[in-house]
Amino acid sequence: MGEPNLEAAAENILRAITPTLDPSKHKGQAGKIAVIGGCREYTGAPYFAAITALKIGADLSHVFCTKDAAPVIKSYSPEIIVHPILEESYSVRDEDKKSILDKVLAEVDKWMERFDCLVVGPGLGRDPFLLDCVSEIMKHARQSNVPIVVDGDGLFLVTNCLDLVSGYPLAVLTPNVNEYKRLVQKVLRCEVNDDDAIGQLLSLAQQIGGVTILRKGKCDLITDGETVTSVSIYGSPRRCGGQGDILSGSVAVFTSWARQLVSSSDRNTSISPRNPTMLGCIAASTLLRKAASHAFNVKKRSTLTTDIIEYLGRSLDDISPVS
Amino acid sequence: MGEPNLEAAAENILRAITPTLDPSKHKGQAGKIAVIGGCREYTGAPYFAAITALKIGADLSHVFCTKDAAPVIKSYSPEIIVHPILEESYSVRDEDKKSILDKVLAEVDKWMERFDCLVVGPGLGRDPFLLDCVSEIMKHARQSNVPIVVDGDGLFLVTNCLDLVSGYPLAVLTPNVNEYKRLVQKVLRCEVNDDDAIGQLLSLAQQIGGVTILRKGKCDLITDGETVTSVSIYGSPRRCGGQGDILSGSVAVFTSWARQLVSSSDRNTSISPRNPTMLGCIAASTLLRKAASHAFNVKKRSTLTTDIIEYLGRSLDDISPVS
Repeated sequence: MGEPNLEAAAENILRAITPTLDPSKHKGQAGKIAVIGGCREYTGAPYFAAITALKIGADLSHVFCTKDAAPVIKSYSPEIIVHPILEESYSVRDEDKKSILDKVLAEVDKWMERFDCLVVGPGLGRDPFLLDCVSEIMKHARQSNVPIVVDGDGLFLVTNCLDLVSGYPLAVLTPNVNEYKRLVQKVLRCEVNDDDAIGQLLSLAQQIGGVTILRKGKCDLITDGETVTSVSIYGSPRRCGGQGDILSGSVAVFTSWARQLVSSSDRNTSISPRNPTMLGCIAASTLLRKAASHAFNVKKRSTLTTDIIEYLGRSLDDISPVS
Repeated sequence: MGEPNLEAAAENILRAITPTLDPSKHKGQAGKIAVIGGCREYTGAPYFAAITALKIGADLSHVFCTKDAAPVIKSYSPEIIVHPILEESYSVRDEDKKSILDKVLAEVDKWMERFDCLVVGPGLGRDPFLLDCVSEIMKHARQSNVPIVVDGDGLFLVTNCLDLVSGYPLAVLTPNVNEYKRLVQKVLRCEVNDDDAIGQLLSLAQQIGGVTILRKGKCDLITDGETVTSVSIYGSPRRCGGQGDILSGSVAVFTSWARQLVSSSDRNTSISPRNPTMLGCIAASTLLRKAASHAFNVKKRSTLTTDIIEYLGRSLDDISPVS
């Protein structure tokens, strides 16, 4: 708002990066997403991110979570593949940590090359041993050039260890008000200054080094340190927990699709920006807002994250019809 | 009924305390509620209270329950944050009780300051060690000035230990017929006398000391020991278990909203009464009755608590439309 010149051609971008559906394609080509999150305390967040990916059109959606969280996440939906492999400190003896870390990594590595994008953070919690494991998973993802969307407790981890994403152009951070504040304090060593929101956001992305940041707010601001764009179409005034998980799952799918588009030689498109993580953020922000608006029109104050997820398909089809 | 002069201007009150929805607000500002309840035996009650809070418009809803109860409550809905931290005697050795109590309190204290209201009792059970832990949680809530709605087994606890709420104006008791009878016997040392229902209710609240009591019945009577008001709009003749949990979750949200309204200097309202717990009870009683009436019209004898919950949003919007 107040930055009309930055407003992305959001619906055009969403349409451009959404792949055509073609009966000759096979399972997996529309996207394979993995969410790293879900612990004893939190199970809803990784479910929301994973089911969102499927509802937008990804073919397969995985969750890597702790053993406690897995049966619950599985119970939410038979559509999601849930791997109960992470461990929290309370269930691990010190002398076993090294071997458990190795086992976790071996398990994730079996799958890593197949994933088009990771989402790190929804319902991850802050257990130190678990975060150590997740740091290693992120390093492996980076070695394999798999894009990483970082949200929630993943941002807590990254804020304390910027090297995990620094200099990695396929990393996307999606901070909310509080997460953004902590990032600014840590990286720029100052407070958030909304009189220079654009400049500060650019500095932040540049300082971290080439990552894409989606700063969530009344108007979403998106930058890769080179350009800044905004998405401010009207969504919903409801602020129920879980909407950030829809966003991170959406960014994962759209970033995967944008990478396919940008790298394919057969589709010469005038799309701008060209950075697939920027495109993914713009499309995801737009779709969430549309779906939230639809859900709110029907459910009003009662709107929950589950309701918004139910409108993702229709909202996507409104913008980019299948035929 | 028979007390038309006491009847609250219920719909006006509900409208006055329901906050406007505003896109510039962020997650949490519409309310963060926690339910203390859920044990090996009971899991439905805390779920009903917690999901009710969200369906009315709270942003976040937590449940603190036993380890056994947590996966089940989580599986009812991904929208609720469930903390598996309470323990029952059967799983605790005597020598470990002190350290477990400390751990439980440390865990709850991490969150306490963020909550706008606690609901203590839905599906709590009566295990002595668990009730000891809950007593301590209530003391901590009181120190932090967090309102406490007490229902179900929470009333069993409080009836046996009145000091937990005595003199705390942010406590709300919501007894049904039997719970009210036990309270009257314990506090007033007499039997319930419905020829002087109002006088006896006032005495009870005064004797306990400044708490608010919502006496559930065909007509709900509400007092803080100073004024008495009633809500008797028609609800439903169905008495399926769980409706009390809808009520306690609703009282929590509306009390939080009423506190915001009464404490905000920018909204000069002629609302009466001024006590936010009274306002919360009046609004909650009204909304439950409306939703139960809608549900019964459709589902008749088949009406269950889940059906009533589905009508909370529409009933609220009928009285206080979002735009």
